Amino acid sequence: MEREELFRKISIENEKKMVLLVLDGLGGLPVDGKTELETARTPNLDLLAAESELGLSHSIAPGITPGSGPAHLSLFGYDPLKYEIGRGILEALGVGITVGAKSVAVRGNFATLENGLITDRRAGRIPTAKNCEIIAYLREKIKKIEDVEIGLYSGEEHRFVLVLTGEALSDQLTDADPEATGRPILYARAKSEAAAKTARIINIFIDRLTAELTDFHPANTCLLRGFAQYPAIPSLAELFKLKAAAIAVYPMYKGLAQLVGMDILDSGRTIQDQVATLKKHYREYDFFFVHIKKTDSYGEDGNFAGKVSVIEEFDRWLPEILELTPDVLVVTGDHSTPALLKAHSWHPNPVLLKASFQRQTLKSGVKFSEKNCVSGILGTFYAMDVLPLMMANALKFKKYGA
Amino acid sequence: MEREELFRKISIENEKKMVLLVLDGLGGLPVDGKTELETARTPNLDLLAAESELGLSHSIAPGITPGSGPAHLSLFGYDPLKYEIGRGILEALGVGITVGAKSVAVRGNFATLENGLITDRRAGRIPTAKNCEIIAYLREKIKKIEDVEIGLYSGEEHRFVLVLTGEALSDQLTDADPEATGRPILYARAKSEAAAKTARIINIFIDRLTAELTDFHPANTCLLRGFAQYPAIPSLAELFKLKAAAIAVYPMYKGLAQLVGMDILDSGRTIQDQVATLKKHYREYDFFFVHIKKTDSYGEDGNFAGKVSVIEEFDRWLPEILELTPDVLVVTGDHSTPALLKAHSWHPNPVLLKASFQRQTLKSGVKFSEKNCVSGILGTFYAMDVLPLMMANALKFKKYGA
Repeated sequence: MEREELFRKISIENEKKMVLLVLDGLGGLPVDGKTELETARTPNLDLLAAESELGLSHSIAPGITPGSGPAHLSLFGYDPLKYEIGRGILEALGVGITVGAKSVAVRGNFATLENGLITDRRAGRIPTAKNCEIIAYLREKIKKIEDVEIGLYSGEEHRFVLVLTGEALSDQLTDADPEATGRPILYARAKSEAAAKTARIINIFIDRLTAELTDFHPANTCLLRGFAQYPAIPSLAELFKLKAAAIAVYPMYKGLAQLVGMDILDSGRTIQDQVATLKKHYREYDFFFVHIKKTDSYGEDGNFAGKVSVIEEFDRWLPEILELTPDVLVVTGDHSTPALLKAHSWHPNPVLLKASFQRQTLKSGVKFSEKNCVSGILGTFYAMDVLPLMMANALKFKKYGA
Repeated sequence: MEREELFRKISIENEKKMVLLVLDGLGGLPVDGKTELETARTPNLDLLAAESELGLSHSIAPGITPGSGPAHLSLFGYDPLKYEIGRGILEALGVGITVGAKSVAVRGNFATLENGLITDRRAGRIPTAKNCEIIAYLREKIKKIEDVEIGLYSGEEHRFVLVLTGEALSDQLTDADPEATGRPILYARAKSEAAAKTARIINIFIDRLTAELTDFHPANTCLLRGFAQYPAIPSLAELFKLKAAAIAVYPMYKGLAQLVGMDILDSGRTIQDQVATLKKHYREYDFFFVHIKKTDSYGEDGNFAGKVSVIEEFDRWLPEILELTPDVLVVTGDHSTPALLKAHSWHPNPVLLKASFQRQTLKSGVKFSEKNCVSGILGTFYAMDVLPLMMANALKFKKYGA
């Protein structure tokens, strides 16, 4: 039996509440002997850790550093190597666009064309305001090509997202990007017969856009790449019979949550706001994904102290979450982002799971840390097993087999 | 996405150096309360362990005792259940023959035929010198059958290796071995239409050999089994973009390294010699596999003290390897060979990984041992993840997904 088939078979609904608190990029590496988590003063997390199950999780597999897409799919219970989220889809999620099953999403750059050659692949990094102005203009000019609807959305500086919506579209195209300056426009080619129509639409689009932007130098043509269709992912409702909601601030994480069928709850941007949102909607759902972004942002910046301070801020709000007495609570990261590396990394994530029916190993007074998670009762496991463990602890899984 | 596809996608080249030190059969079982590794005085390994990541690896899976072939495939990053190295190929590797893609390798026994019946399946275990003499004679007599070249190579005593090389050969044959005395010669049968030609060649070979050896009683016929073609394994260069070299003394390990595309470096037979070889070629490659055999040999002999002494000898040479300051260094075994069992075993392997960006758990002054590896930060994992972990620590893996 396939893993997902198993979940469909054994999942049951009950009234128990589960909360998954994700501190993005939580895990770290030691600087002066201590990681960010070890450095942070976290009295509430430490108290909680003493009465929780601890472990370490591999986001994907040992040694593999994940992007946010696969890392979150794992945490939502999906095999991250089974579902690929194409670059265009992620870009669309990142600017807050919902992409449907009949659409192809594409990353676009405005670029500069001079005497038939691309001279700047980023159109001099035009200001975002200029980008918005051009996109508004193009929306009026190019609404449809054949029977395909054209959606255009501004990103930062020279970036935009193009969404084609219509019948019989495919993402099996080569990139329309020469990847170097001094070359002419490169048109997309269909990798298979099924993509012939999409390639034709894309190439007409490039010509129409270039014709419309004659007077918009340096943003007078475009490069298109990362063609991607919506991955056909079964929802959390289908797999786990969960009524799930996300409390996330950044568009990409909202998008990833929406991809697996979560409702996206309106929330302010601080941790305090997010906790207030959780309280407000607590009766309405049985699974909450709360995404705290800044741990990762500071990690990426190499700002060790900044990351420590976000962990400490989170710790101050933790008691308010605990007051809700969720039946299963997990605190973890989606991947590690050590300030030392200024990047996502492959190091496994600390995992804390608090529920009613569990074994514990940590003595009280011991810190919630990567090191102490090594000897936790959960051992080292794969992040895609976090949600199944939560389901089990919430008694939402029936016995498999007789 | 498949595991190997992932590796191809995320591997990058850089200047970092990785050294994989394999003490064959390193892991053991306690005698008088201590394993071989726990008994050995290893001051250098212990110092290194305190600043390394530790863990335990399953060669194949919990409970599975591997042969050398699958155990090394695992260490080289391959799923050992995906690629089968046929017995004939291993036998060929063991006598130092390189087998190409158009060849079928076969294990041969000289045997005794009397009155049309096999009376000794090992021809009285003729001396190896006699074997060499017979093989030299046969090489002159049987060079080709139809368009197929016949390669013959002596093994120990009654054993030899036959290699067929030509077009449209197949290893899908039943063994030409009655597996008991008192029976006539058993000819090979093709298991599929594609193997008909190979079966015909094999059976002609048996008759020709038997005719040639009329005067060579007791070695006057042969048994042939373990027909095997070269497994189509992608190289380390293809999967991981590595320029890899092996420093191994025994033919089988050279052969296994060659199978995955490593260069085989000429080396003397002692650990000292092997370290000298590593130094000599250190600038030329970015991955070195150093294979130390005697730990396993003594284990297989049940010689606990002998195995301890090889570990201690290795420890004395370790500082010279450390002086090279490889970016990533691993010390591990391919499988356990407890002297107590006088055989390979299923017990997981101690793993020590030293690199720059890591978490540590062992306090200094604690021994590198099976027991201490249990609580290491690497946890218990699969040996096929050793190379991916090395790649990650050498920053030779890009992020997966965005």
